[in-house]
Amino acid sequence: MNSRRHFLRNAGAFAALLGLPASTIANWNTEELLHRISKEKPMTGKPVIGLRVDPIEKVRTAVIGVGNRGFEHARLVHALSPDKAELVAICDIREQKVKECADYLVSKGAKNVSIYAGKEDGWKEVCKRDDIDLVLIATPWENHTPMALYAMQHGKHVGVEVPAALTVEDCWKLVNTAEETQRNCMMLENVCYGEEELWLLNMAESGVFGTLTYAECAYIHDLRELMFSKTYYYNQWRIRHHLVKDANLYPTHGLGPVAQYMGIDRGDRFNHMVSMSSLQAGLDEHAATVEPDNEFYGKTGFAHGDMVNTLIKTAKG
Amino acid sequence: MNSRRHFLRNAGAFAALLGLPASTIANWNTEELLHRISKEKPMTGKPVIGLRVDPIEKVRTAVIGVGNRGFEHARLVHALSPDKAELVAICDIREQKVKECADYLVSKGAKNVSIYAGKEDGWKEVCKRDDIDLVLIATPWENHTPMALYAMQHGKHVGVEVPAALTVEDCWKLVNTAEETQRNCMMLENVCYGEEELWLLNMAESGVFGTLTYAECAYIHDLRELMFSKTYYYNQWRIRHHLVKDANLYPTHGLGPVAQYMGIDRGDRFNHMVSMSSLQAGLDEHAATVEPDNEFYGKTGFAHGDMVNTLIKTAKG
Repeated sequence: MNSRRHFLRNAGAFAALLGLPASTIANWNTEELLHRISKEKPMTGKPVIGLRVDPIEKVRTAVIGVGNRGFEHARLVHALSPDKAELVAICDIREQKVKECADYLVSKGAKNVSIYAGKEDGWKEVCKRDDIDLVLIATPWENHTPMALYAMQHGKHVGVEVPAALTVEDCWKLVNTAEETQRNCMMLENVCYGEEELWLLNMAESGVFGTLTYAECAYIHDLRELMFSKTYYYNQWRIRHHLVKDANLYPTHGLGPVAQYMGIDRGDRFNHMVSMSSLQAGLDEHAATVEPDNEFYGKTGFAHGDMVNTLIKTAKG
Repeated sequence: MNSRRHFLRNAGAFAALLGLPASTIANWNTEELLHRISKEKPMTGKPVIGLRVDPIEKVRTAVIGVGNRGFEHARLVHALSPDKAELVAICDIREQKVKECADYLVSKGAKNVSIYAGKEDGWKEVCKRDDIDLVLIATPWENHTPMALYAMQHGKHVGVEVPAALTVEDCWKLVNTAEETQRNCMMLENVCYGEEELWLLNMAESGVFGTLTYAECAYIHDLRELMFSKTYYYNQWRIRHHLVKDANLYPTHGLGPVAQYMGIDRGDRFNHMVSMSSLQAGLDEHAATVEPDNEFYGKTGFAHGDMVNTLIKTAKG
């Protein structure tokens, strides 16, 4: 079995199990699902794991979505200019967010940054330009895959925020499109590259911990204020996932670094998992405290349990 | 359904799932096992949950097994004498251990403590005496149930170290015998009564934590030195369990206090669990470091993973 496919098979299993609506999970046929997830797909081009493209001396970059995380990407890219990178364009459906980002960039000396704002398909215009090498995507989760596909299809390398996909099908689309276009598509799981995480990775690889047999990881972040906010997430998109899905919706901050220490896809791989969620009370209780004109005021019956734990076994044990 | 039975049904499920040899677990028919575990048994006497017996002004006590934990029980009982308790007898198959304990007690002013040593069934002689109210059992795990049953059958109240039983059948025997004899049989899970644990219980019951939806607990204790020791555990009994069983072998230190906070069997109950163990390397690696005349020197293939995690869901969620 091709290792690249193997990788995706597992990544896909995650996305699928983690992203399915609770109602689906309650009714699924496990055997059928596992079979579907683990089925090999024919390759559509040269593998892209280890893909090398010609060096780009100054990476011409666009950022789609600059309301929250994307603002930071724009800031960082601009900080690399003019030597390493050039910020060519920023885009957001909310005019105010693009304006705030543009004002900041101008205050830092940025020039010639194109602005795409207020239009549903401004991001497509960005992808169609031929003076951009890299597109960074920091939009609501459900937009990640379509935008990444479109950008690759228009010859762009892609950095896409976590998660890169919400379904197995979308994972395959990303792989197939990367193979067809020979473009890099990287999920921006920045936590893997934090100082502490790399320090621990170095220790793990140096054998400081002896035989690694077990690891725990977590990403516990109380986002209720932001999720219920009427302005922070565009159209309160994030809380909507919690209405219908019960799973580890955002697992890679915790899991990514640990997967590195355990040598996942570098000698070991995930091959079994089981997940259990707790009672949901936090969202129902918070919903009662927000402003009465908030769409989620007094809402109850959120699907997402307050805490979700997943046990994962690797091939080595 | 009688709540007393309900309680045992769940306790029994635990003991069975946690105490089965790994080889059995690999081959079990889950449905069959769950059915067997959850089957109601006919009652054999008056319920003993909430059992009240006449107050005993001075509790005449015997301790069976004084090598490790039992030494401490003997010490504590003697500390309550002469006002609250009287230590009547101590018993251990190892003469040296009984001698050490007796010497200590004498040094603290104890008198008239009977000694039972060096005989396989010394403990039966203890249980047959009619001048004893309470028998404390601190012997190897596999002896707990037979000794507790025998003591109750001879009219004694029983305090038995963790775990009280290793199989579902033994759980039922304990309940049935307690009902038949109307004797108290208490598992000595001391951690539930620690200062910190009771402090947290008080906070939980006072609502300091709001709605409790999730709890984590653990008992992580590197016992390798003691388990491999040729002298600490009689006949190295404890490491032998790790040769053949893979499970949470000693779960109540962690789970007991949390179960109190969650109101288990006081409004909620455990109703679903799944368990996963890690790779085993710790025991194999340690076995290579002990003395060559140790029975476990160089032994490999221990069944018990280095770390075992169990997810448990309660009826409330």
